[in-house]
Amino acid sequence: MEVTQANFKATLPEIETAIKNCTFVSIDTELTGLKTSLNKINAFDTPKQYYEKVIKDCRQFLVVQYGLTFFRYDEAADVFKHKSYNFYIFRKPVRNCVTDQRFLCQTSCIDFLIKNGFDFNKLFKDGISYLNNVEEDMYKNSIEETEKRIRESSNKSSGISIPAEHQDFVDSVVKELQDFLASEENEKELPKCNAFLRLLIYQVAKEKFQDQISLETRVVGKDRILFAKKYKSQIERMEIDEKKIEDMQNSMNDYIGFSKVIRMIIESEKLVVGHNVMLDLLHTIHKFVTPLPEDYDDFKECASSLFPKIVDTKHISSSESFKDLVNSTVLAQLLETLQKEPFEMPKIEVEENSLSYNINDAKEHEAGYDSFITGVALLGLWKYLGIEKGSFHNDDIFANLEFLKPYLNKIFLMYLSDNQYAHLSGPDLNPSREHVFYLTFPKEWTPNTIVQLFSPFGGVYIAWLSEASAFVALHKKDQAAVALKTLSQGDTYSIMTFAKRQALLAGLRTIAPSPIKRRKSIEGSLQTKRRKTNSFDGGSFSSSKRSIEPIVEEEQQTDQGASGSPSKQGLFEVASNWD
Amino acid sequence: MEVTQANFKATLPEIETAIKNCTFVSIDTELTGLKTSLNKINAFDTPKQYYEKVIKDCRQFLVVQYGLTFFRYDEAADVFKHKSYNFYIFRKPVRNCVTDQRFLCQTSCIDFLIKNGFDFNKLFKDGISYLNNVEEDMYKNSIEETEKRIRESSNKSSGISIPAEHQDFVDSVVKELQDFLASEENEKELPKCNAFLRLLIYQVAKEKFQDQISLETRVVGKDRILFAKKYKSQIERMEIDEKKIEDMQNSMNDYIGFSKVIRMIIESEKLVVGHNVMLDLLHTIHKFVTPLPEDYDDFKECASSLFPKIVDTKHISSSESFKDLVNSTVLAQLLETLQKEPFEMPKIEVEENSLSYNINDAKEHEAGYDSFITGVALLGLWKYLGIEKGSFHNDDIFANLEFLKPYLNKIFLMYLSDNQYAHLSGPDLNPSREHVFYLTFPKEWTPNTIVQLFSPFGGVYIAWLSEASAFVALHKKDQAAVALKTLSQGDTYSIMTFAKRQALLAGLRTIAPSPIKRRKSIEGSLQTKRRKTNSFDGGSFSSSKRSIEPIVEEEQQTDQGASGSPSKQGLFEVASNWD
Repeated sequence: MEVTQANFKATLPEIETAIKNCTFVSIDTELTGLKTSLNKINAFDTPKQYYEKVIKDCRQFLVVQYGLTFFRYDEAADVFKHKSYNFYIFRKPVRNCVTDQRFLCQTSCIDFLIKNGFDFNKLFKDGISYLNNVEEDMYKNSIEETEKRIRESSNKSSGISIPAEHQDFVDSVVKELQDFLASEENEKELPKCNAFLRLLIYQVAKEKFQDQISLETRVVGKDRILFAKKYKSQIERMEIDEKKIEDMQNSMNDYIGFSKVIRMIIESEKLVVGHNVMLDLLHTIHKFVTPLPEDYDDFKECASSLFPKIVDTKHISSSESFKDLVNSTVLAQLLETLQKEPFEMPKIEVEENSLSYNINDAKEHEAGYDSFITGVALLGLWKYLGIEKGSFHNDDIFANLEFLKPYLNKIFLMYLSDNQYAHLSGPDLNPSREHVFYLTFPKEWTPNTIVQLFSPFGGVYIAWLSEASAFVALHKKDQAAVALKTLSQGDTYSIMTFAKRQALLAGLRTIAPSPIKRRKSIEGSLQTKRRKTNSFDGGSFSSSKRSIEPIVEEEQQTDQGASGSPSKQGLFEVASNWD
Repeated sequence: MEVTQANFKATLPEIETAIKNCTFVSIDTELTGLKTSLNKINAFDTPKQYYEKVIKDCRQFLVVQYGLTFFRYDEAADVFKHKSYNFYIFRKPVRNCVTDQRFLCQTSCIDFLIKNGFDFNKLFKDGISYLNNVEEDMYKNSIEETEKRIRESSNKSSGISIPAEHQDFVDSVVKELQDFLASEENEKELPKCNAFLRLLIYQVAKEKFQDQISLETRVVGKDRILFAKKYKSQIERMEIDEKKIEDMQNSMNDYIGFSKVIRMIIESEKLVVGHNVMLDLLHTIHKFVTPLPEDYDDFKECASSLFPKIVDTKHISSSESFKDLVNSTVLAQLLETLQKEPFEMPKIEVEENSLSYNINDAKEHEAGYDSFITGVALLGLWKYLGIEKGSFHNDDIFANLEFLKPYLNKIFLMYLSDNQYAHLSGPDLNPSREHVFYLTFPKEWTPNTIVQLFSPFGGVYIAWLSEASAFVALHKKDQAAVALKTLSQGDTYSIMTFAKRQALLAGLRTIAPSPIKRRKSIEGSLQTKRRKTNSFDGGSFSSSKRSIEPIVEEEQQTDQGASGSPSKQGLFEVASNWD
C-alpha cells in the first residue's frame, strides 16, 4: 500500500494493529545518496572507523522512501500472512518551527531511483513529514515562545515611538477603529500600508483597544492588508489565543508524522529484519528517533536499546552456514537461490483485506517491495536453519528466535574484509591483520607493480587508500614475517605492519624511523620478474570499472570492461570482493 | 516551447537562428537552492564580500531550469516578435567521463518549485546535459586515455599470471575459442565466470587470437557474460576501435548539450537581460562556461568579456530615474506598473510559427515565462527612457543601446544597502559608510535596545551580524561624529566605525585598544528613556518573520505577523528594507 501525507493519518491505526500482531517486520529505505565523495571506506577499516565515516553521509542525505512489510505467522493455517507499506518521506519547512533543511543528492542515486520508477513529484508534493527528538524539542520550544509572546503582548507595549511624519496616519486609523467599534460590523479592512506602519498600528491598537479588537495581516492579491475584528469578550480573546496554540500543537503532531511509525515499532520490541541494513538502521535512528552519536560505542548502546532484536539477511547469508549454498548475497539473487533446493520456503499469503506484493512483481528498488522480499528471504534462511537443527515443523521453527540467535544484532558491514559486522549487543570481530601491510609508493605504480612486488610470497589483495598508498594483504598468511623482512628494504616504497599504521593513526606512539630503504630501485627488476611467478589469484583491481549503480550491495559485482587492461583509475574509491 | 533531452538536438538549429536574429535575449533560471546556511549576506557587505559569499552557493546548487526569450524588433511592422524556450537541465553521470556529482537542495526552494508546477520527474528523466570547459577537458582526456589503452592493448599483455587452479578452465576456454574460429559461427557465448576469470580470458585471447577474435562483456539477466566475435580482418578491427572512439566523441557532444546554447549567445554578443540577474549570471558562467574565479576582479573581467552587454531590470527599475514611479521592483509587480501610465509598452507579438508566452499566462516562476516577462519589463523601461530623452518613435529608441548606456553591465546586488550593484565593466559604487557603526552587545539585547541606545541621534537601520553584533546605520548622517563620541563609553557594549571594522577584518592593522567603557550600564537607563524620543523610523526588525519563500527578490517583503511584537529570532539572517 502506498502511503503519502494524504492517507497517512487514516492508515496509522491499521499500521499500529499490524505492528502489534506481526511476528517480525522487514524494512528498507531509498536514499538521495549513499556516499559523499569524502570518507571512502577501506576494506581494512575497523567497524569503528567504518561508523565514523558513514555517519557523515547519514547527516547529509535524506530518506525519501521507507518500506515496511509485516509478516504474521498464522499457526492454524501454517502460513505467513504479509502486508506491505511503501511510504514517501519528505518534510517541508515551517517558519520558525522546522528548519529550512539543506540536503545532498548523489546524481547516480537520483538517476537510479528515477529509472526504477520513483515519483519525485509525489515525494515533494505529498511526502510524509518526520521529526527526531531534537527537532521535536525545537518545535515545542517555538510553541512555548509563541505562548509566552501572546501572554506578554497582552501586558506590555512594544514601546516604539511614533515618528512625527506618521502621527496623522496613525491617528486616522485610530479614528477608523473607534468608528468600527461603534458600528455593527464584525470585521474591517484597514488602509494598505507598509510593514512599519502596520507594526505601529498593532502597537496602538493594543494600547487603546486591547480587549476589544484583534488585528490580523492577510495577503490580498499581492498586498498585505490589516484586518480588524471585534473581540466579543475577554474570554473570547483567550479562546482565540488558546486556539492558536492548539493549532500549532496539532501541526507539530502532523510534523512528527512518520516518526510515529518508527516509535511504535521500537515500543513493540518486535524482530526487525533488513538486508544489508546498516545504512537503513543509521538513517532510521538519525532521522526518526535521535541524532546519531559521534562515538561508535555510544551508537551500539543506542541502537541495541532501540532495536534489541534485529537481523541482517546479508550477514546471515554471508555466514559460514550458507557460504557453500549461496552464490550471491545480492538480494534478488539470494531470493532466487532460496526458492530452490536445498532451501524450502514456508507458505506465504497476502493478509486478508490488505495490500502487499507478489515475488514476481517487477518492483525491485521500491522500498516496499524490497522490504517484502527481504522478509521472504529471512523466511527461507530461517527455515533452513531450523531444518539443519532437526526441526521440521514451521510452528517449531518460527515459534521463537532460537535458530536466529547466532545472527541477532549483527549488522553486515559492506566493503569490509572477512565478512565483518557491527555487533550491536556485544564485541565486534577482531580478525587478525598480521598478514596485512601498509604500503606507500610512487603514484605511477599500477596494481601490477604491487602484485609483482609481493609475488615471491603468493597472491595479494590490494585495498587502495590513495594513488600512492594501500593496504596489501597476503593470501598466504604464513608468509607475513618473511615478506615484511624481505620487503622492508625498498627505496621507492615504504612498508609497515597494519598494527603500526593503526597505532600511528591513533597517535598512540610517535612516528618510528622510516623503514630502511634499499639503494637500488626494485621497480626495474619488476619488469623482468613478470610471468615468472604464479602469484595473483584475484582480489584486486576489482573497483577499477565498477558500476555507477548506487545500490551499495551491487557494487560488489565489478567488471574489467572490454579493453581488459586494468586501470588504477577509481581503484582507491573502494576495495571490494570479486563476487 | 519546452525543451528536454528528447527534442534538444532537433531544436538547436532554430535556437541558433533566433539568437542570430534577435534584438536581445532575456534569461531566467530556476535553482535547487539559493543559500547554503553559511555565508549570510549583510546589508553593508562590499560587492567583493558579496561575491565571495555567493560563489560558495553557486558551487553547491544546480540550475534545473533555464528560460530564454528572444525579442526581435520588426521595424516594418513596428512590433517586437518574441519566442520562448523553457529548458529542463540535468546531467547524468557517465562512468569514468562525467563525475557522479553531489549537489545540494534547499527544502524551501524544492517546495517552491513543486508548488509552481515544476516537474521533477521530467527533470531527472529528460534533463539536458551540460559541461563547462574544465569538465569538457576531463571528458576529452578520458577519451584520449581510452584511445591510448586501445592502442597499447594491441601491443602488450596485461601480464597477469594464471593461477594453477584456473589453468584448466582457461585452457578449456582457449579450446572453445579455437573451435569457434574454425566454425561458421560469427559469435559465441563463453561460460559464465567471475570477473577475475574474465580478465584472464581477455588476456589469453589477446595473446593467442589478437587479430582474429574480439571479446565483449554483456549483461545477460543478472549475469555478466563474455561473448567472442570474429574479426574479419585487421582493418575491420581498426574500424571497430575507431567506431568506439567516435561513439565516445558523439556522446561527449551530447553531454555538452545546453552549454552550446550559452556559447552561441556569448558568441553573438547580443544584449542579454535578466531581472535580479546576479545568481543567474553566476550559475550560467559556472555551470555552462567556466568555473567561477575566486577573485572578484577576475570575475568581473571574465563576466564582462563573456557578456559585454548585459542589463538587469531590477537595477534599472531601482535607479533614480524610476524611484518615484515604481513602487515595487518585484518582477510581477513591476510588470503591472509598467502597463499603466506614464509607461507605454511597444507592441509585442509571438514570432510566426513559434511558441511563446502571453503576459496573462499563470506561469510565474517557470523559467521560460519569467524570462519572457523580464524581456517585456525591459521594453517598458527602455521605451520610457527613450521618451524621457525626447525620442517618440520605437525605431529611434530601440535602434541601438544609447538609452540603456547608464545601466549597461550593472548587476543589482540583492540585500545590500544603497541599491548597490556589481559594475562588471567598471568600478563599483563606494558609498559613504561614515554613518555606520559596528556594535557588539550582550546577546539578550533586542532590536529595541539598540534603537533606544541610538535614539538621541535619530532613527537607525540595524543590519545584524550575529545575536551579539550588528552594523548600525544612522538615518541622520550628520549625527555620526557626535553619536560615536557619546556612545564610545558604554560598558555593556562596544562600538567602532565601519572603516575600522573593515580594516580589522582585512587584517590591515592590529586591533586597537577596546573603546573606553562607561562604569554604569546604559541598559538600566534605556527603560526610562522609552517613548521620550522620536527616533525610530523603520528599517530594522524587518527580517524577524520574513517569508520562507525562496525567491530572493520577494524576501524584501516582510511582515511582523499578528502578535506585533518584534522578535530578534531570524533577524540576523539578513537585513532588508521595509518595502
